[in-house]
Amino acid sequence: MIGFVGLGAMGMGMATSLVRAGFEVKGYDLNPAAVTTFAQAGGRAVRSAVAAAEGSEALIITVVNAEQAQDVLFGSGAAAAALPAGGVVVLCSTVQPEFARETASRLYDLGLEMLDVPISGGAARAAEGKLTIMASGHPTAFVQTEPILAAMAEKVYRLGDECGHGSTVKMINQLLAGVHIAAAAEAMAFGVKAGADPQQLYEVISNSAGSSWMFQNRVPHMLAGDFTPLSAVEIFVKDLGIVLETGKEIRFPLPLAAAAHQLYLMAAAAGLEREDDSAVVRIFERMAGVEVRSEP
Amino acid sequence: MIGFVGLGAMGMGMATSLVRAGFEVKGYDLNPAAVTTFAQAGGRAVRSAVAAAEGSEALIITVVNAEQAQDVLFGSGAAAAALPAGGVVVLCSTVQPEFARETASRLYDLGLEMLDVPISGGAARAAEGKLTIMASGHPTAFVQTEPILAAMAEKVYRLGDECGHGSTVKMINQLLAGVHIAAAAEAMAFGVKAGADPQQLYEVISNSAGSSWMFQNRVPHMLAGDFTPLSAVEIFVKDLGIVLETGKEIRFPLPLAAAAHQLYLMAAAAGLEREDDSAVVRIFERMAGVEVRSEP
Repeated sequence: MIGFVGLGAMGMGMATSLVRAGFEVKGYDLNPAAVTTFAQAGGRAVRSAVAAAEGSEALIITVVNAEQAQDVLFGSGAAAAALPAGGVVVLCSTVQPEFARETASRLYDLGLEMLDVPISGGAARAAEGKLTIMASGHPTAFVQTEPILAAMAEKVYRLGDECGHGSTVKMINQLLAGVHIAAAAEAMAFGVKAGADPQQLYEVISNSAGSSWMFQNRVPHMLAGDFTPLSAVEIFVKDLGIVLETGKEIRFPLPLAAAAHQLYLMAAAAGLEREDDSAVVRIFERMAGVEVRSEP
Repeated sequence: MIGFVGLGAMGMGMATSLVRAGFEVKGYDLNPAAVTTFAQAGGRAVRSAVAAAEGSEALIITVVNAEQAQDVLFGSGAAAAALPAGGVVVLCSTVQPEFARETASRLYDLGLEMLDVPISGGAARAAEGKLTIMASGHPTAFVQTEPILAAMAEKVYRLGDECGHGSTVKMINQLLAGVHIAAAAEAMAFGVKAGADPQQLYEVISNSAGSSWMFQNRVPHMLAGDFTPLSAVEIFVKDLGIVLETGKEIRFPLPLAAAAHQLYLMAAAAGLEREDDSAVVRIFERMAGVEVRSEP
């Protein structure tokens, strides 16, 4: 039996991937509609984090941030106390590495294991069971959860025997991803203002040394003017916030991450926080009176 | 007959590619040693820009910046006046789009054509005749120079009938390339400071959404601690300077390009201006007392 807390865009896909792989999964979310949807997909609906944890060999947590994860395990959720001895908490939320380390230590004191398992790949790959997982934790926890991770992920990176390493690598990935999307927005809007054709600019840069994974992936959203949130502006307000908070704590200056974070905050301030992260381009568009759109 | 001015790391490879393709090429550089090397590779050595221009159907200019190009054509070089009527100036230097437009107009008044042809790909691809060319200019100039461009480049993007468009696209490419190298440095050094293994970090990010062309290409230099200049810090001091100057002129704010430019200036201030651009990581290394190196 597996417990699952957090049936959002990523969690729902992951939980239903587990059901499809033959696991019995108890799913809980604050939003009752998500729980109902999960039950219709073959999962078992439960009404609390405690109920998800009771009798489960593993409890997978995909809530949005550290505060919620903390609350699920030790606060109002009280799930840690409900897990059977030897149970494994699989923490998938993007959190500060220090939070992952501290949480693992606290669970260990309760006779529980933890894996620090940030995920990457987006909602579509989550639904297909084809995520990338950046995992660290004790080898016995890996042995216990190997088939569970395999059902959710196409690629599992094992990044060490201690919790925290997974979150560190994920944090660095988010730093770069966040900077690259903001840079793509700045560059495309600047190019259009300077007289370039947006579609041509996209095609040439995509095949040149200025390209990035995010440039190739997000600029088409800008060209189409389609800001349907596949991953929202507020995710980078949060994730670059984690980056900068960690930088402050370990005394590491991050001028590019800080500048990019300000751009996502500008987008959020302009009411775009729930739009796709590529909507950061609209800040430049509004300031400079241009539009990064290609002809249909 | 082709004239060629500027036999540096890029120009030498391009000029010898032309010789190899069967063109007769007169080469000039301020540095006599470079001219001698070119003569040994089968080119014709000349002692001035005027001599390179005289009787040439095309004059290729690969000097380092707009000031030098200006001087070659209209200043002490006086090459524009020496070109035969209908000759084409092929301007390959990375310059502000406005400079390319103005120069084309000035040459046109003298009965000459110009192509705005910034190049990309590095010295190794220049030597192989496999550059990427971002070209704009009048169609007749393209017809006249088609076999010349084909001998130097694997890929020729035609970006419009007016000079300036090529330089705009190149400028945007340099904005992104410069930001991505600086972001790679910031991210790798931060990751190591936060406890990640540098080699593992490189491998995971290379295959994740945080990757960029520059991340994949430059981080190996950091991991090896090999800052032999394939492209130097001072190139981005210059090229992001062009980006920011243009931004100022057309009133476009560029927070990420500006932050990255400051990092290259920090590297230059620390005496690293002639090292590889990936040496920008050493600024972070020195500040934070870490080293982004993998075991050999």
